[in-house]
This record gives sequence, structure tokens and C-alpha cells, in this order.
Amino acid sequence: MSEFDLIARYFTRPAQPPGRAALGVGDDCALLRLTPGMQLAVSSDMLVEGRHFFADVDPAALGHKALAVNLSDLAACGAAPLAFTLALALPRADEAWLAPFSRGLLALADGHGCELVGGDTTQGPLNLCITVFGEVPPGQALLRSGAQAGDDVYVSGTLGDARLALQALRGSLKLPADLLAQARIRLEQPTPRVALGQALRGIASAAIDVSDGLLGDHGHLLKQSGVGARIDTSIAINLIAASTYSNWAGGIISSQKQLECVLAGGDDYELAFSAPPSAREAVQAASRQAGTPVTRIGRIEAEPGLRLVDGDGKLLAGRFASFDHFA
Amino acid sequence: MSEFDLIARYFTRPAQPPGRAALGVGDDCALLRLTPGMQLAVSSDMLVEGRHFFADVDPAALGHKALAVNLSDLAACGAAPLAFTLALALPRADEAWLAPFSRGLLALADGHGCELVGGDTTQGPLNLCITVFGEVPPGQALLRSGAQAGDDVYVSGTLGDARLALQALRGSLKLPADLLAQARIRLEQPTPRVALGQALRGIASAAIDVSDGLLGDHGHLLKQSGVGARIDTSIAINLIAASTYSNWAGGIISSQKQLECVLAGGDDYELAFSAPPSAREAVQAASRQAGTPVTRIGRIEAEPGLRLVDGDGKLLAGRFASFDHFA
Repeated sequence: MSEFDLIARYFTRPAQPPGRAALGVGDDCALLRLTPGMQLAVSSDMLVEGRHFFADVDPAALGHKALAVNLSDLAACGAAPLAFTLALALPRADEAWLAPFSRGLLALADGHGCELVGGDTTQGPLNLCITVFGEVPPGQALLRSGAQAGDDVYVSGTLGDARLALQALRGSLKLPADLLAQARIRLEQPTPRVALGQALRGIASAAIDVSDGLLGDHGHLLKQSGVGARIDTSIAINLIAASTYSNWAGGIISSQKQLECVLAGGDDYELAFSAPPSAREAVQAASRQAGTPVTRIGRIEAEPGLRLVDGDGKLLAGRFASFDHFA
Repeated sequence: MSEFDLIARYFTRPAQPPGRAALGVGDDCALLRLTPGMQLAVSSDMLVEGRHFFADVDPAALGHKALAVNLSDLAACGAAPLAFTLALALPRADEAWLAPFSRGLLALADGHGCELVGGDTTQGPLNLCITVFGEVPPGQALLRSGAQAGDDVYVSGTLGDARLALQALRGSLKLPADLLAQARIRLEQPTPRVALGQALRGIASAAIDVSDGLLGDHGHLLKQSGVGARIDTSIAINLIAASTYSNWAGGIISSQKQLECVLAGGDDYELAFSAPPSAREAVQAASRQAGTPVTRIGRIEAEPGLRLVDGDGKLLAGRFASFDHFA
């Protein structure tokens, strides 16, 4: 199948009524209308076989994830998704792979009104590069650089389950089949927090999406804000969805492992954000509006660095005592 | 060197005064200001080692080409470049490669006022994905679909030299060293016709950039316009810059080879466009304004298909008689 046949069959669809694309797939450029006065938000992510996904991953899940990681960047900026481009290198034009990949990709795109407007396909080692476009009112984008001493620190949803699944799939941890299935959905089909990001505009002082682990990513936010933070590990440890399950399953997962997955996991695609204590009610209202739970796990401090404390506020010693370990 | 060090060292620069990026490399998204009322033009291209370039290509030339092929898409739409993202998979963080790559890339970017605003770097088989953003007044983008029977057919610059260089580098053709050097520049450091594309707004009825060979690419334009064309091969054959040179060199390149390179070459990154005969003076004025020569090589006809004729208007038989051969 030629490149043009591929594009026609799997990535071109009839124009959708409310579309933003003045011109979509099939010309030299895609042309997009922005809402007058809005700023364009852009993010680009590249996924490589063997590094970001296993060769035998379900193609539908991969299509979902390739777009989800980009939508998560828009979410972290509080931007509303508009459209995306897909560049795809494939070892060969395998319809048994392309059909479910395209289905998974476009299902998530449709769920967010995010139109596929162009891209590229070529022969080569499997590589997916998506660039996503969103819009945000000028001056209202959530940045990494706005956290202030005294602000609360929040995370959305759950953390660490993707890491748990990854370890089980790599064979370094044994999980019961049903627990693995549950955690694997978090690894392979993450949910970008697009509605929450937009609901937090004007409320959160800073935000970032958690893709490489909470400590590392939140560390970037702290660094760019010129502040530090204190995280309550007695709260954070329960952010892993598998925790309730694992207690029931009789302690398959040690509390050390739980905390490690939560703090230094990756592939969570949750939002970590800060907001002043005066905004606590507004944060909860945004959470309800977006249908996404948020948990307050600490506070921003003037002193740089990230300090992990127990439920009594005592600094943790040992492996998780230092943020630098994960930098 | 970590991903963050890489980004900092080679792809982050101090903000440039006239920049369009409200926020550039280093947050979850880049934020871009468009000129009020303009449409966004977007194009994405992926370049893979072994397919789009040789493993031993000069990294500075590769940096240039990776952006040039994207700027060429903007040119074909008549859009003015604004900014781009770069996603890069590298087998390893090799500074001896990254430094010249970044230099070649950013030199071309600066020449077009096109800001690097974000992207991604990861470990993997060498793969470059650039997504470029431009702006164009609503309704003024050059499309593939506007050619009308009776229009003239033009191409910019020269065609076929990149193909000649490729054949020599692959060993299927022998060229004198100085002729190879001249042709190789066209292969490895193409010149996107950005100024010409913008100058042709309101003049050209349709346009496409020639990346996969004139017949194939112009065939897309004809198909999307629902028309056909007649191309005068006695004019087209001289579009290869090496032709004058090769005559001097004593017929190293047969006229059959010349025509093959011009019509079915690739990597030219010239514009093929149509315009009504009433616009001939305007086309020449646009050409002078942009400093890019253009050559009238044929005309659009109502009958679908692409017909190659000799200097007397007689249909060519044989290998180049049918466009379908190259589709």
C-alpha cells in the first residue's frame, strides 16, 4: 500500500461540522482558524518502540497513548485542544496494525474535539510523533514558573499504577492477573486531564504534567518557580489506586514499593499543581466541574529543594529523603 | 548528557527581540501569538536515516534540510514562517553531531525568522520530526485545488540536480567531482521558496512543492484541481542546472537522463504552480520581488492526465508518455 493509500484509508475522514480546520489532510499545509484573540499552545512528543512502548503493545492502546501524552501537555497549560498532526515511521504498511492504531487514536481525538489535520508517513523503525495545537486566552496559560511560598501542592487522580504495571510486564514484580490488568490500563491508556487543566485557569499558580515521575517533574516546576516544597508521604502513598487492592491482596506490594511507584514512577499523565490556600474551595469546585479528583499533598516553601515528610511532619531519612536522587 | 542538558545546550537560545513565542522551550507547551486575523498554516515532516538521508551526511546540512523541507510546505501555501518544533530520536547524545546539526538548523531558521519553540528529544534510531507554523491571511493560502483549464504551468528555480547527486552518491552514475559537489548542495541543502510563495498570493491559482518529483507532485495538484496539463519537455529538460555544465563536460549525462531527473527526480523543493495567462506580468514581478527565477513549462487543460509534448507540441511516446507511470 502506498503512502497516499495509507493516508486515505486510515487518517482521512469526512470534514466534521464543528471543525477548526479550514483545510485538513491532503494539501501542503493544514490551515487552522483560532478563536479571535486566543493564543496558540503547541506541544510535540515522540514515541519510540522499545523505549516508550513494547513492540507487542495493543495498537489501539498505542494510538490512544500517543495522543494522550500530547493532550496532557495541553492540559498542563490549561489549553483547549484544537487539532493535531501525526508523523509516523512504520517498518511496513501493516493493515492489521494500522486499523486498530487509527481507531484508538481517533477515538481519543473525537472525545476531545481534536481534529487530525495533517502529518507524514514514511518507512522506518516504528516512531510516532504527534504535535498538538490548543488555544488559551492570553496571559491565562498555566505555567511552571508561578508557584509561591505558602501555596498548597496538589496532584490529580492517581499516581504510580503505570509504574507498577511496567515493573510487572518487565518481570521485576509479580502481580495477580486482575491487578495487572487494572494497572496496565493506566500504563497503556492514560487519561489526559484536559478538563481539569482548563478549569484551573485563574486558580492554579503553577502546573506541570507528571510524565516522568512526581518528584522529577514537580522538581522542574519548583526550579522554574524558584521555590521548594514539602510533600506529606503519608498522604502521597495512598495515591496509587492499587493500594487498596493490594492491601486486600495481602501485602503483595510493600509500602516502600508503593511510595516508590507514586513518587518516582512515570507515565501517570496526571497534573501536579499549586494554588494559594485561599483558593481551596475554587480548586475543589474545578475538580468537581472536571470530574477529576485532586489531592492536596503538601505545600510550597521558599527554601529550594523538595522535602519528604511523614504524617507528623518529620523529614524522611533514607532513599526518598532527597529530591536530587531523582533529578 | 541528559535530555535536559541536551535541550539546554543545543536548542535553547536567549529570547529574540521580535519573537512570536510568548513562551518558548522549557514549559509543557509553547505559546504563540498570531497576527490578529491571520490563519495558522501547519506542516509536519519526518526524516529517517537510510530513507531520507545517508548515515554519513554532514549534520549541518541535515539540520538545514530537516527545516527546509517543512519551510517548503509553508512556501507552497504562501504562508509566512513563524515558528517550529523539533522532535529528535538519537541513538546517543553525540555532541560532535549535535553541535553542527543545531548550527545548520538554526542558521536556516534565523534566515526566515522562524523560532524554535519546543519539541522533544529521546533515545532511538535516528529520526527527525519537525512541525512548522506559519500564518496566512484567511482565504489567501495557495491550495492544490485551484488550477483552471487555460492556466499556465510554472516551476521555480531548477529541477533534477538533487536526483543527479543521489544517483552519483548511490554509485549508479559517475559525475566529475565538481559537478557532483554542485548537485550535492541541491540534494543536501535545498532552498525553500518561502518569499516566492508569499509573493504569489493572489496571483497563482494553485501551487504545490516538488519534493517527490515534478510529475508525481504536479499530478497531485491536477487531481485535486480536477484538470490535466500539457508540459513542454523541450523547455523542462533545461531546468536541470547541471545541463549547461554537462554539455561542457561532453555529454556525461544523456538527454534521457536529464529529462528523467527533471520530471521524476525528487528532493527539489521548488514550487510548481499555475496562474492565468492574464497574470504573466504579475508572475514575473513576483519572481523578481522574491529573487527566484520561474519558468513557464506548460498549460492546464480540462482533460485529466498529464501529457508530455516536444517543442512542436507533439505528444511524446515511450517512457515519459504517461504520467501514471510515476503516480
